[in-house]
Amino acid sequence: MSQRPTIAITCGEPAGIGPEISVRAAWELRADVRSVLLGDLAMLTTVARAINPAIKLVTLASIDALSHDSNCNARDQLFVVDCPLSVPAVAGVLDPLNGLAVLHTLDVAIDAATQKQIDAIVTAPLQKSTINDAGVAFSGHTEYLAERTATPQVVMMLATNATPQPLRVALATTHLPLKDVSSAITFERLSSILDIVHADLQTKFGIARPRILVTGLNPHAGEDGYLGREEIDVITPVLKAAFAKGQDVRGPYPADTLFQQRHLAHADCVLAMYHDQGLPVLKYASFGLGVNITLGLPIIRTSVDHGTALDLAAKGLGEADYGSMMEAIRVAAQMACASRPVLS
Amino acid sequence: MSQRPTIAITCGEPAGIGPEISVRAAWELRADVRSVLLGDLAMLTTVARAINPAIKLVTLASIDALSHDSNCNARDQLFVVDCPLSVPAVAGVLDPLNGLAVLHTLDVAIDAATQKQIDAIVTAPLQKSTINDAGVAFSGHTEYLAERTATPQVVMMLATNATPQPLRVALATTHLPLKDVSSAITFERLSSILDIVHADLQTKFGIARPRILVTGLNPHAGEDGYLGREEIDVITPVLKAAFAKGQDVRGPYPADTLFQQRHLAHADCVLAMYHDQGLPVLKYASFGLGVNITLGLPIIRTSVDHGTALDLAAKGLGEADYGSMMEAIRVAAQMACASRPVLS
Repeated sequence: MSQRPTIAITCGEPAGIGPEISVRAAWELRADVRSVLLGDLAMLTTVARAINPAIKLVTLASIDALSHDSNCNARDQLFVVDCPLSVPAVAGVLDPLNGLAVLHTLDVAIDAATQKQIDAIVTAPLQKSTINDAGVAFSGHTEYLAERTATPQVVMMLATNATPQPLRVALATTHLPLKDVSSAITFERLSSILDIVHADLQTKFGIARPRILVTGLNPHAGEDGYLGREEIDVITPVLKAAFAKGQDVRGPYPADTLFQQRHLAHADCVLAMYHDQGLPVLKYASFGLGVNITLGLPIIRTSVDHGTALDLAAKGLGEADYGSMMEAIRVAAQMACASRPVLS
Repeated sequence: MSQRPTIAITCGEPAGIGPEISVRAAWELRADVRSVLLGDLAMLTTVARAINPAIKLVTLASIDALSHDSNCNARDQLFVVDCPLSVPAVAGVLDPLNGLAVLHTLDVAIDAATQKQIDAIVTAPLQKSTINDAGVAFSGHTEYLAERTATPQVVMMLATNATPQPLRVALATTHLPLKDVSSAITFERLSSILDIVHADLQTKFGIARPRILVTGLNPHAGEDGYLGREEIDVITPVLKAAFAKGQDVRGPYPADTLFQQRHLAHADCVLAMYHDQGLPVLKYASFGLGVNITLGLPIIRTSVDHGTALDLAAKGLGEADYGSMMEAIRVAAQMACASRPVLS
């Protein structure tokens, strides 16, 4: 893609660090990414001036305007679509009156991505409770994106470039009590997840023939049934079926020895069976630079791997680490470039 | 300890890489560790000559002889207590006829450690099936050591020095099917395990006031009961009771964010709830130099974190990596020095 990819950044909870890390990261990456910030214009203007008076914010009436304005490729500016708050944000203090404004930034981004006006969405952290307290049932970014794009199944992947080669870990289950994990690993579900991971590695990461290493569920991958039968009854049949479809999937491997350089060096992704089997090593390896990627959507979406950090926001600007936000934008841009370019 | 610690090394399965890595590591560390190899003298002599003709093996009638012979402190030799095989070992080929000889090396080591003739035991990998096929029910080194020393509860810890500071991970459960983990985490069991980890960090690692970070069982440590109740019902009460006893234990923490340098830098040990929650990150961080330590025994015992590698052994000497064995001996020596010296 000769043109910079265009990425909408939803600035997240206005009382948290989201607006600051969004502006800082977008500005730092402006040579490579055309960023459109979605948030309250007055707030973003204040933040930008405080960070660096050189930051130039250009207001767009809508994201669609980017397609029609030949001045929109200047590399010394950030774009903003104003999504006004109901009341001014106070750093560190949640206000449900602003819940719907936060949600609106997501809607704007999803519509633009669906209509291919942008190449990807990057989301800063929001506070679920603020939106719920505003009267909208909201269980998280990922679920909302799935619902709004009519996607029946999404897959959470975390990735990092902070290792000798990119490390990507996708999860077969996510936020489930540990005792419910075994029964959630069914043939149908695991097959569908493997298909999504495989397809997205091809279409969104540009890997023609992705190699996926799959963990077992039990210690030592069940040790031939001695430590659990899910590998024999479910995981191995799924892998055999995927292999028969031509997918380069391998396993199930013991999780404790799979995350070794000699295995990872030849893999594009690890599919772990559950949250705490796959994420501790990813987050250890990423040094706080992990990126959360939602697979299975018809659009590209990445996010940071941390929360709103209200406590840091309350201390004022300059406290927050925007490294994960930088990575989230970089990875979104890489994915946008690896996908077919949709902008002229 | 001005004197080198004395460590008995059981050379493990004779058809595997155990004899080679034991000789190589003991020889390389001879300036710091007085090693007594327990294995077949003829086999060890052959291995030693092939590795390096300069290796001097001195045969002892028994380990007790070390206490009475003033020549036993020369630093240019390794000691051997001959534990003869029934039939000559063939590299890569298991023979149940040698199962009892392997077991005998453990008995010799345990007796010597119990009688304080040595400071620690390091075990090379053995093949459980060989001993079982020889007619002795044997479920593993750890279980055998517990039984022979009448220890009701032991705890598995893995440790590495390959990180900025030592990383130690103890496990509340080990080789259990994942679906059985939740019910195994009881107040009594977890309390007992925490007591053992705390006591051994004091007595065997010389840490006066150890700080132990404890993971939750569920993702996000249960998120206030939303993702599971074991943290509220079991883990937190155990930690409160331990804290009331004066132990510096903290948690339960989400496992995915606990293994960050900013947390680990202030901790002496992480107690994880299960195998694949704690070990992937430890083994990732240790680069194959992890050491397995059995806590709760009245003696010090470490081992490598790999198996017999029959395939490598079959290829001949020089194929095996003895890094983990070096670390197992080093850690045993550190623990011996941190404990009160028992030899004059």
